[in-house]
Amino acid sequence: MAIVEVSVVPLGTKTTSVSKYVAQAVEVLRSEKDIKYELTAMGTIIEGDLEHLLTVVGKMHEAVFDAGATRVVTTIKIDDRRDKVSNMSSKIESVKRKLEH
Amino acid sequence: MAIVEVSVVPLGTKTTSVSKYVAQAVEVLRSEKDIKYELTAMGTIIEGDLEHLLTVVGKMHEAVFDAGATRVVTTIKIDDRRDKVSNMSSKIESVKRKLEH
Amino acid sequence: MAIVEVSVVPLGTKTTSVSKYVAQAVEVLRSEKDIKYELTAMGTIIEGDLEHLLTVVGKMHEAVFDAGATRVVTTIKIDDRRDKVSNMSSKIESVKRKLEH
Amino acid sequence: MAIVEVSVVPLGTKTTSVSKYVAQAVEVLRSEKDIKYELTAMGTIIEGDLEHLLTVVGKMHEAVFDAGATRVVTTIKIDDRRDKVSNMSSKIESVKRKLEH
Repeated sequence: MAIVEVSVVPLGTKTTSVSKYVAQAVEVLRSEKDIKYELTAMGTIIEGDLEHLLTVVGKMHEAVFDAGATRVVTTIKIDDRRDKVSNMSSKIESVKRKLEH
Repeated sequence: MAIVEVSVVPLGTKTTSVSKYVAQAVEVLRSEKDIKYELTAMGTIIEGDLEHLLTVVGKMHEAVFDAGATRVVTTIKIDDRRDKVSNMSSKIESVKRKLEH
Repeated sequence: MAIVEVSVVPLGTKTTSVSKYVAQAVEVLRSEKDIKYELTAMGTIIEGDLEHLLTVVGKMHEAVFDAGATRVVTTIKIDDRRDKVSNMSSKIESVKRKLEH
Repeated sequence: MAIVEVSVVPLGTKTTSVSKYVAQAVEVLRSEKDIKYELTAMGTIIEGDLEHLLTVVGKMHEAVFDAGATRVVTTIKIDDRRDKVSNMSSKIESVKRKLEH
């Protein structure tokens, strides 16, 4: 299982507000089973099987074109750990525990 | 006011667990006034005056060396909007409102 | 056709030098037809059909595990423009032309 | 000495072509001494003293607003190695040497 952060940025959209495009990309996640996701102020973090996640990220990227964009810059960061089970909440907890000391 | 996402990655740390280093970087934020921050599974999102944020990000990067790393890859993403007040929560709210329709 | 930048970072390696892992990822590109690539000091830029590129990026990510890593952070940036043909050299040329004025 | 990759993306521009904005950011580098830089298809890679680089990156970000943008997303990746001298060309050479074997 991997954790992936995705951020989609449409270019040349006339207005600086891009939430309409982001929402259309996030909409893709709602119909996907077996994927957990979380919106942040800078992107969307998803968790699941890596191959599945990459397919979904491809769909999210396409969704921005479907929303009307003609140029899209999509950034994807994969954190893939195979020595140990890791997920979104365990990663945050691990840092928080260290902060308490 | 800008929103900045920071992620610090120490290289050559012997163990794959890096939360000790991340915690030391996040520790920097606790003593900074006028900066709001939020931990995510993939980084830390901070909000405030851009010049101040960049100084703080520099300190976070240094903190990873202080924690013992000798090579650090730090990624910073700035979202800076000057036509309108924007912050971490308004950005998320804006996407959520569009998702409801 | 899209342009994609990939950077692979193995965590928890014994040494801070990671070129061995990067080389194994780049090796994947050598056997791929229809993909142009260029090494930079911060990653690899590849150009081709987007679906093909994403498959190849998945293989590059796997190659770092094959090289012995147990945790890998891979960053992918897609620049996908559908209103106009664009490629690695035309993008650089376009900026250089503006710099001359 | 550190190596930094910068990419500036203006949002809400009338056209999808953003080379005008990128050129204005790169223009900043031309007047900076002690900084080596290289344009790639996905950003600009600069090399020098880290504190100096971060100041310059701040100026590059501002230059995009000066060029007329009202919202700018700037991504910065720092590779900072303190156990060994490293620079743009040594990093590429190191990967190429491994590819030859």
